[in-house]
Amino acid sequence: MEKLKQRILKDGKFYDEGIIKVDSFLNHQMDTALLCDIGDEFYRIFKNCNVTKIVTVESSGIGIACITAHKFGNLPVVFAKKSTSKNLSDETFSAKIHSFTKDIDYHARIDKNYISSNDRILIIDDFLANGEALLGLIDIINQAGAQIVGAGICIEKGFQPGGDKIRTMGINLHSLAIIDIDSNGKICFIDK
Amino acid sequence: MEKLKQRILKDGKFYDEGIIKVDSFLNHQMDTALLCDIGDEFYRIFKNCNVTKIVTVESSGIGIACITAHKFGNLPVVFAKKSTSKNLSDETFSAKIHSFTKDIDYHARIDKNYISSNDRILIIDDFLANGEALLGLIDIINQAGAQIVGAGICIEKGFQPGGDKIRTMGINLHSLAIIDIDSNGKICFIDK
Repeated sequence: MEKLKQRILKDGKFYDEGIIKVDSFLNHQMDTALLCDIGDEFYRIFKNCNVTKIVTVESSGIGIACITAHKFGNLPVVFAKKSTSKNLSDETFSAKIHSFTKDIDYHARIDKNYISSNDRILIIDDFLANGEALLGLIDIINQAGAQIVGAGICIEKGFQPGGDKIRTMGINLHSLAIIDIDSNGKICFIDK
Repeated sequence: MEKLKQRILKDGKFYDEGIIKVDSFLNHQMDTALLCDIGDEFYRIFKNCNVTKIVTVESSGIGIACITAHKFGNLPVVFAKKSTSKNLSDETFSAKIHSFTKDIDYHARIDKNYISSNDRILIIDDFLANGEALLGLIDIINQAGAQIVGAGICIEKGFQPGGDKIRTMGINLHSLAIIDIDSNGKICFIDK
């Protein structure tokens, strides 16, 4: 998505070890005009998938998921809650997720009432790097017996393994901007 | 807001000690059609306040804030991040907030780049009970020297002290549904 790529180049901040900050427009401050364009693009890509529900994980995916759901004619959104507590409940589907950013494990949980085997789910998130969060959501949705019709990611780090792992599983993954680092150490965008 | 009140009565779950769960439509699963109606109502109430930015706190306020910002012609949204770490940074405004639900203290933080003294801020959140989160956001916005033009809350617990505290401060607070418990122990709605 050209508008997102241009915005990443204009306002993203790039640090060593592939760390990218886009918190001026995507995941701390949010440009809702850009979120609308992103929602329109996800709708264009997934509109024929008969999506019944959008699933994301707190926190930074929530705004993107809600605006995208609005573009799909106001679909329901469910966000998985994060908790470091080990007390699992019979009333939730849950998956352990490792956060490389914070170097902690947490559980992502969704109440069993809010996903069912009748659902056709589109997963939405802001970032895909190692894929831990997305794999956790896939696990949770599989536990519910629901169908995953696609995953829409705003920014994928093409030099980290998450995207390829998810594609190998046969998930219909679309990332609006896949970032790589060229041989001169500069940021570039690639297709996968 | 009549539609929200009817939905609370229809789908809310009420427990002892004034605990109310609305996670089937507002803060775990989110009915984005209802969020659009809520956004329209906040726009109707605050449209003449020259709002420049919407501020909320993660996680459950984010979806409501984004849809509301869209209704205001795509204003930027900033959500305060929660952290239990005590390491404060010079680069953030922060406030300590006590969570009565989880019985923990955390810091809410906003990067200093994303609120300025030129901003006219509308605070949006899903719940107001003891007022800790809202008071924390007010503190952060005051640190930035920005003006608070209003606070829009979906559900206020009228039998807890937060709303009255905030009104006493002179904040232009509007809650779309203020819940109370009548003399028979039944849920009712009041005006303040």
